[in-house]
This record gives sequence, C-alpha cells and structure tokens, in this order.
Amino acid sequence: MEESKSIMNFRPEIKVLDATIRDGGLVNNFDFSDEFIRDLYKANVKAGVDYMEFGYKASKEIFDVNKFGKWKFCDEESIRDIVGENISDMKISVMADVGRCDYKKDIIDRDDSVIDMIRVATYINTMPAAIDMIEDAKSKGYETTCNIMAISNAKESDMDVALEMLGKSDVDGIYIVDSYGSIYPEQMRSLADKYLNIGEKYNKQIGIHAHNNQQLAFANTIEAVGRGVNLLDATMSCMGRGAGNCAMELLLGFLKNPKYNLFPVLQFIEKHINPLKESGTVWGYDIPYLLTGRLNQHPSAAIDFTRDRRSDYAEFYQWLLERE
Amino acid sequence: MEESKSIMNFRPEIKVLDATIRDGGLVNNFDFSDEFIRDLYKANVKAGVDYMEFGYKASKEIFDVNKFGKWKFCDEESIRDIVGENISDMKISVMADVGRCDYKKDIIDRDDSVIDMIRVATYINTMPAAIDMIEDAKSKGYETTCNIMAISNAKESDMDVALEMLGKSDVDGIYIVDSYGSIYPEQMRSLADKYLNIGEKYNKQIGIHAHNNQQLAFANTIEAVGRGVNLLDATMSCMGRGAGNCAMELLLGFLKNPKYNLFPVLQFIEKHINPLKESGTVWGYDIPYLLTGRLNQHPSAAIDFTRDRRSDYAEFYQWLLERE
Repeated sequence: MEESKSIMNFRPEIKVLDATIRDGGLVNNFDFSDEFIRDLYKANVKAGVDYMEFGYKASKEIFDVNKFGKWKFCDEESIRDIVGENISDMKISVMADVGRCDYKKDIIDRDDSVIDMIRVATYINTMPAAIDMIEDAKSKGYETTCNIMAISNAKESDMDVALEMLGKSDVDGIYIVDSYGSIYPEQMRSLADKYLNIGEKYNKQIGIHAHNNQQLAFANTIEAVGRGVNLLDATMSCMGRGAGNCAMELLLGFLKNPKYNLFPVLQFIEKHINPLKESGTVWGYDIPYLLTGRLNQHPSAAIDFTRDRRSDYAEFYQWLLERE
Repeated sequence: MEESKSIMNFRPEIKVLDATIRDGGLVNNFDFSDEFIRDLYKANVKAGVDYMEFGYKASKEIFDVNKFGKWKFCDEESIRDIVGENISDMKISVMADVGRCDYKKDIIDRDDSVIDMIRVATYINTMPAAIDMIEDAKSKGYETTCNIMAISNAKESDMDVALEMLGKSDVDGIYIVDSYGSIYPEQMRSLADKYLNIGEKYNKQIGIHAHNNQQLAFANTIEAVGRGVNLLDATMSCMGRGAGNCAMELLLGFLKNPKYNLFPVLQFIEKHINPLKESGTVWGYDIPYLLTGRLNQHPSAAIDFTRDRRSDYAEFYQWLLERE
C-alpha cells in the first residue's frame, strides 16, 4: 500500500527549515538573548535541520531599530557573530517582505554573505514586486523562495495566475502559507496538488508554512508531505505569531530520515523555551485563535484579546461574526 | 470535486458525543462540582450535542467509592439528579469497562433508566467478555457500542478477527480508539476504511475516539469523518487523560450541520474550564505526551512526569527508548 510505504520510508529531498527566530520574533519583537540564538543554532545543526532562518531583512527606513531586536534586520555582522563562517551542513535563510525591505542595498552579494537563501514574503496582489526581489536575489547568487501569504482569502483564479508568474520566474521554491490557520487537511491536500502541478511543470520545489489556530499545523504539514511537498517550516514548541506554527519536535518525531535527531531539540526546549514561556511570552493554540482561524480572519484581534487577558470568548466570537 | 463537497455540506448521520466527564474524570478522579455537571448538561443540550457521557459504571466491589467522585459509578439517582427525566433531544451514555463493571447487577433495564446507551470498553484480547456485556445491555433495551482500546499495538490479523466477532454481534456501533495518540492521519484513514468495511457488511455505525498526544486528535477525527465515520467523541477544551481528546470547540466549528451551536460551548469553557485549569488541574498537549505518543506507549509515564513537574525531556525520552 502506497500510504504505508510513504510513512515507513523517507524522501531525501525533504528539507526542514527552523523559523523560530523569524516567526517567533513576531511574538517578542525579536528580543532574544544572544545565548538563545547561539544555542538554537547549535541545536539545529545537531538535530540535522537543513535551514535556519535568522529573521527579517527589514528596512531601517521604515522600522525603528530601537523598537525591535536585531533579528528584525539581520545585519551580516549580527549573523556572523553567531555562526562565524557557518562551517556546518545547515544553510542560513532570511525573509524579506515586499514593500518593507531595501533589498537592492541591504541584500549584498552572496559571495560576501553567510546567508544562503532569501525567502520573499508577499501578498498575492504584489506578485510583480515579489518577482523583482526574487530576480535581484537570484542575480546576487542566492537560493530563493516565494511565500505567498493569506492564500485562504485569495480567489482561485488569481492563485492560478500568481503561480504561473512564479513558475516562469527564477524562483527555486514556492511556499503554501496558511497565514490564518484556517485550512483543513483535505483543503491542504488539494492546495498541495495545485502547487505541485506548477512545481512539476516549471521544476520548482514546493514548501509549506502552517499556523496552529485549529491545532492543524502539524497535520497539514505532514499531509502536504504525503502529496510531495518537500520544504517544511517548523519552530521550536510552535513558537510563532498567535497560535504559532508546526512544532519542530512533532515534525522531527515524524520524519524518518535518520539524519534528523530529536534530542537536541528537546534539550533546547528544556533550556530556553520553558523559561521564555514562564517569563510571560505567550503564543500557542487557544480559543481566540481557533475563532479567527475558523472564520478565516487575520489573528490580530485574537492577539489583542489574549494580550488583554480577556476570556469572554462568546462575546468575542459574536464580535468577530458581526465584522465579517 | 468530492472533497470540497464533503467539506461544504454535512451528513445528518453524524452524531457528536461529549465525553468530558468520562475521559476528563480520569484527570481529577471524577471530582466535579454538581454545578459543573449541570452547566455541562445544559451547554451540550443547547449546542446540539447528540450524546453526553456521564462517566463509568465502575464496580463498587473493585473501586472504593470514597476515593472517586460519583461519576466513576454513575448511579441512576446521580444522573437523574442532574437531568430529571432528560426531556431533551440529547441522549445519555455511560461507559462500562470489561472486568471492572458488575453489569448484570448494576445495569438495570432501560425502561427504568434515564440512560440510553452503554459503551463497552475493551482490549482486543477480552472480546468475548465485551460481547457478553454488549448482549446483556442489548437485551435490557440499550443502544450499545464497543470501544476497542490500544489498537495501535494490536496485530492486524487479531483486529480482523475482533471486528468480525463484533460484526456478528448485536452491537450498534464500533469505535476506533487511538488510546496512545500515536496514529497519524494517513494511518487513521486506512483504519477508518477497515472499520467501515465491517460496518457496511454488518450494518454497524463506526466511531472515533482520538487522543491529542501529537496534536492530531482533531485532525484524525475530521479525517475519519471524511471517510464516513459518523460517531465522534469530543471533550470541552480537550479535557481528558494525558494530552486529552478532540476539542469540542474545534469539532463544532468544523461540522456544518446547522443544529450545532458553538456559543454554549464557549460560554461553558469560559465559566468552568478556565477556572478548573487555574485551580491546577492539568491536561493537554505537552512534550512528554508527544514522546509517549510518538513511541506508541501508554501515557502513564508522561502523566507521572507531568505530575512531578519535571522538564528534563531528553532524559525522559532516553528512558522511554530504553524500556521499549
């Protein structure tokens, strides 16, 4: 039976990307200690993780450097201070948002950088700008991916056009991004098939970045794997905006490639994630995120609700329904 | 596309069973206030839940009535004290464990009882005893189901025999039970198909009772629904042993039958579940449960680990691996 075969064996093409700093930084304004980042780097290398994302290449013209930790900006020196020349098998990525990155200036030639991959995040209506960023990064020598956000609200016909545009571009990988955590597994399988068709046609890898609003981030990730998706985002203990992401500890527990090792991840969580949670940094599945996810809405209202320590869920749900 | 159709529409045959007291009682020795139970009953009726399980019919010869709350025993008077004659559309169930229930004496004729359904829980090697209990309950006038526990450790050939035995019995429903929370969605789909084949052959409904060790309880439940499973167990905010169960709030948010209503569930959680958690009653997804689930082991070691407030996950994982 094909399904058993796929769960017993592994595809060497699968690559795991740790997005703890980048998506987790949205929870704490990138205010991580250097020890946290250093230990995360070591844990990822030991765990066999394929890529570690250090944060955003955000524009210092737009964002105040005094209001965010350094991983919002990912200066070359900041990364080198942690990884040196990165003499490991793990590659390094950063994310660049359309409209929030001075990419022509801030992204230097890959020969001069310790970064290996630029991931361009875009909404579907800014695809030409995203492709310009991708071509710029590609011409500088980087691996590139495009992460199309908020697709659960996009029209299918627009999606088809966007995927064709990306297919014809130089991008190496295209990510399915469930920004609102609203996608159910059977929908994820259909989406994966749609993206994989483009991937096959244009020789692109397909990736997935899931959110956990309905406790489906891990399920959606492994369902996408079952269809042929190879680039998998995860974060330590789900750390990420709102309900967080697919947990690294769940994902590495599932993947059968013997290169992956769960122990360094468990040690990292014990040493760094538990204290972070105890210090009051809040993320993860909770009722308000379920409600925005279920309604296919941005989690910002749920983040505010949680920050205000409210628990009037029924009132909140009514309010969400009325603004739809 | 069939998949979209199934997610947009609903099957009226689907029945939701609230197992909060029964599985949740394993967390707090069934020490619930009467107000909790009364409000839970009202919330379930308003939410359109189809069955509410009040607890176990445990033997008072085996279990000390002073060490457990009354829902371990579910005396007729205890249930009537909450529901009166139960003049609602919701039915009432109790669970009876093979070898731990004086069923001939303690389960009275349905005509004299407010209970509608007896769910018999068994391991695969005590199937003849389970069938004796089922026939006894059936002859007294009850709806009956059989919940075969710990199937992730059973041989497939034994499963086939057990399902054939049940098929030929008078039982109304057969549950897939993922006791250890170790089953992945693609395995759940195969299991569902196996049970549904028996269900079709012998005219039995198939059900699912999932555990959340790998954050897959909800995903596995809705994947089983997609194959044709109709009897769905859920609990308020996942309350249940160890990592808990499929969350009622997630399940009712997914089901499209307009008879289901999420608001009473949200109100119940706000009023009763949050205070219960704040009082120190602990359940739900956490690293130790992921580890036992991943290794297909009983959660008891993880429950002890959590109770002892340990966080040396790597040490614990090593210990679990060594005892395999």
